Amino acid sequence: MSTTQPLRSLDISNINPHVKAAKYAVRGELAVRSEEYRAKLNKGDGQGLPFDTVISANIGNPQQLDQKPITFFRQVASLLENPTLLEHEQVLVDSLGYKSDVVARAQKLLKEVKSVGAYSQSQGAPGIRESVASFIERRDGYPSSPKDVYLSNGASSGVNTLMHVICAKPETGVLIPIPQYPLYTATLAVLDARVVPYYLEESQAWGTDLKGIREAYDKAVAEGTEVKAIAVINPGNPTGASLPAADIKAVLEFAAEKHLVVIADEVYQTNVFLGEFISFKKALRDLQKEQPGKFDSLELASLHSISKGMVGECGHRGGYFELVGFDPEVAAEIYKFISIQLCPPVMGQCFVELMVNPPKEGEPSHEVYKREYDGIFNGLKERAYALYEAFKQMEGVECQEPAGSMYLFPTITMPPKAIEQAKKEGRQPDEFYCFRMLDATGVCVVAGSGFGQKEGTLHFRTTFLAPGTDWTGRIVKFHKDFMDEFRS
Amino acid sequence: MSTTQPLRSLDISNINPHVKAAKYAVRGELAVRSEEYRAKLNKGDGQGLPFDTVISANIGNPQQLDQKPITFFRQVASLLENPTLLEHEQVLVDSLGYKSDVVARAQKLLKEVKSVGAYSQSQGAPGIRESVASFIERRDGYPSSPKDVYLSNGASSGVNTLMHVICAKPETGVLIPIPQYPLYTATLAVLDARVVPYYLEESQAWGTDLKGIREAYDKAVAEGTEVKAIAVINPGNPTGASLPAADIKAVLEFAAEKHLVVIADEVYQTNVFLGEFISFKKALRDLQKEQPGKFDSLELASLHSISKGMVGECGHRGGYFELVGFDPEVAAEIYKFISIQLCPPVMGQCFVELMVNPPKEGEPSHEVYKREYDGIFNGLKERAYALYEAFKQMEGVECQEPAGSMYLFPTITMPPKAIEQAKKEGRQPDEFYCFRMLDATGVCVVAGSGFGQKEGTLHFRTTFLAPGTDWTGRIVKFHKDFMDEFRS
Repeated sequence: MSTTQPLRSLDISNINPHVKAAKYAVRGELAVRSEEYRAKLNKGDGQGLPFDTVISANIGNPQQLDQKPITFFRQVASLLENPTLLEHEQVLVDSLGYKSDVVARAQKLLKEVKSVGAYSQSQGAPGIRESVASFIERRDGYPSSPKDVYLSNGASSGVNTLMHVICAKPETGVLIPIPQYPLYTATLAVLDARVVPYYLEESQAWGTDLKGIREAYDKAVAEGTEVKAIAVINPGNPTGASLPAADIKAVLEFAAEKHLVVIADEVYQTNVFLGEFISFKKALRDLQKEQPGKFDSLELASLHSISKGMVGECGHRGGYFELVGFDPEVAAEIYKFISIQLCPPVMGQCFVELMVNPPKEGEPSHEVYKREYDGIFNGLKERAYALYEAFKQMEGVECQEPAGSMYLFPTITMPPKAIEQAKKEGRQPDEFYCFRMLDATGVCVVAGSGFGQKEGTLHFRTTFLAPGTDWTGRIVKFHKDFMDEFRS
Repeated sequence: MSTTQPLRSLDISNINPHVKAAKYAVRGELAVRSEEYRAKLNKGDGQGLPFDTVISANIGNPQQLDQKPITFFRQVASLLENPTLLEHEQVLVDSLGYKSDVVARAQKLLKEVKSVGAYSQSQGAPGIRESVASFIERRDGYPSSPKDVYLSNGASSGVNTLMHVICAKPETGVLIPIPQYPLYTATLAVLDARVVPYYLEESQAWGTDLKGIREAYDKAVAEGTEVKAIAVINPGNPTGASLPAADIKAVLEFAAEKHLVVIADEVYQTNVFLGEFISFKKALRDLQKEQPGKFDSLELASLHSISKGMVGECGHRGGYFELVGFDPEVAAEIYKFISIQLCPPVMGQCFVELMVNPPKEGEPSHEVYKREYDGIFNGLKERAYALYEAFKQMEGVECQEPAGSMYLFPTITMPPKAIEQAKKEGRQPDEFYCFRMLDATGVCVVAGSGFGQKEGTLHFRTTFLAPGTDWTGRIVKFHKDFMDEFRS
């Protein structure tokens, strides 16, 4: 053997450069440090730390932050895991608080999947896709077919699937909102395709700006990019926006004009505090009625998930996407692609069914379901506004009113001395700010640079999932100290 | 708008050609037709069909084929889904058959993950990775560290992750056994990397043949392929082989010589009927002791899963891989890559913990666990041998003795007239045979061409999961009729 040969097969210089190029700050260095703090505190080893708890406001992880699961869902799930319990219906009802609709739903789902331990069809269990299609019909007032519904492993795997099919070559581009949830840019990086960034308008409640989209498109085309799709996240992540009808319509019209696939990431559709949620599917069908012909060939893929909203079952990894207007041959390739990974988690599929078909009024579990659902919704709204009020009081911080999703994305204006210090430490200024916040308060947020932001602006993203207001107070105090420290 | 523009953004001519190039026959056209038959029968609409049940012998889907889940696992899982049941321990014990170790395990796992509805760390919950590392230590007699263990979404996502990192460019090649489980070739196709096929030796119980591996490697290198890794499936899929120590050692020596990453797919490690399972990790550590220095830089990734064996919980999508000898910078890229998809299903992670840490002798649930485990094992072995005996009686069919995994992969010698007829119908001969079998018997198997086979040979893969022997009889009768029909 020659000594010039590498000792290992793989090192950082020769692995897939596209994997290396991907960035995903949500679970990056800040998150790792916060976990180290948490581990220290759990070991009783946190004497030197100026806080006694770590608040993971970096990830939309509801149940890690004490959001309680919906009782009906979990009761059904327990019967799916152990169907022998169904032989003891009296015990369940008399001693354990299970109601008849819990038992009936478990029986129905078991009939559908046979066992939650068995593979389903790759596209998802047929009966569950039927439930999803019915939900979409009720939500939008337009037909939906189970054959167009693809259950997925959270919404993330759906995005991954769609991007895999769309990205045909290095020149392929996808319009991505900035700021964005970094799944999009990371996936495009891995696929060696191009991000075509379009900026959201912070001054207009983080809405989409058609002029900006058009300019981004034209610039990309001029550079030789073949723009094939546009992604929209509504309600917004990280922005917390909830798009008005006019914005959605404008995006659809632009997509029809330019023959772009619309990828509508609607995982926060029930987290809406201002205005109402309008699905891209409904908006498209409305436009097709109003202007016959013009939108007939538009392709729309819309995604939903059990991870967010009042369900919050992200650990179960369930979701779906619906295809509208896709070529059947392309859909067949999507089917083949997902079949290589066999099927989405079957329990996650069952949670999708429960989410889209919860107890109805008059059914035994409805009252508790409604109370739990409303309680979570109102708690989120209250905390969102409490945080918003706190941000309003902070020097150099501006924040849009909470409208949707689980996040606020305030702007921070940092003193020049702080920016200099960040440079010295080799960090982006907002990253520097977030590390300082974590070290001082135990609150972990994500720097705006992890999502993209207009040049010269600085932000951070925080969830408002963590219970209580103590941690908000910690942020306020930290911010004051930070500003004082670096004031010129 | 010009009329020459395509109406849709996507059609079969412009989507990702690498997705199009991927082949995955296990869930392909045969499987689709079998589902159509099943749907017909379920609707009471099967009057014209010459069978009354469909047997899905194409997929290793144990619980779909009536393998019962392990009681201990499912009892724990039901408590993880509904932890309020833990407040009723007396009811669980007195009326529902839960034992104290079930309750204790559920409490332990809940402490670890907080909620099965919450995201875990991307690499998997730390305590569960600790259990996996302990299991590996007990199995192999060598240390294992939780920091090297990555929980995954079945083993498939682990393979996908490893291939993503390894495949740096179109010239990158990975040695893949032929026949193989088509996940490997499909993943390499999607990544636009090269399959470097090496043939397994049917005449030597489908063992690895070092001479053949060396020739395949040399040929690939001569063609400009940069061979970076070698995949081995042991016990074998689709072959049903169980590799002897000498074969494993030879592969490791070759990998060390050529600086190849070894990907050891060991998901069938408990499905061994002949000889004993030897892990690549143990074999590597043995070699390192015997020949100090020579194997120090070898990189090994070994995969395991909850989908197979006596667990059979494929619907829960759980698995893990252990990295040995990887560069920490490369491991960091693997971590980042998996973090983009957030985390593996948390319930799947919990099943991994249960699999690697089942009830021990003397613990309350041990007796039932042992009885169930042995019952499944012996049932599989009996059915494997019954099928093997049936194949031995079939004209023109030869089959290796069942040794491991869940499959048999017999050779078929088809009459020339049958091969002509296949050609007329535009099918591979073995595919033609399998369609004929499905149409005549309702038994769905997969043609050897879906896995790759030596030119001029024909095979099919069948699981031996389906209960009873009726379906074996149907295959025997079909085969006789088929041979009679096409006899010259």
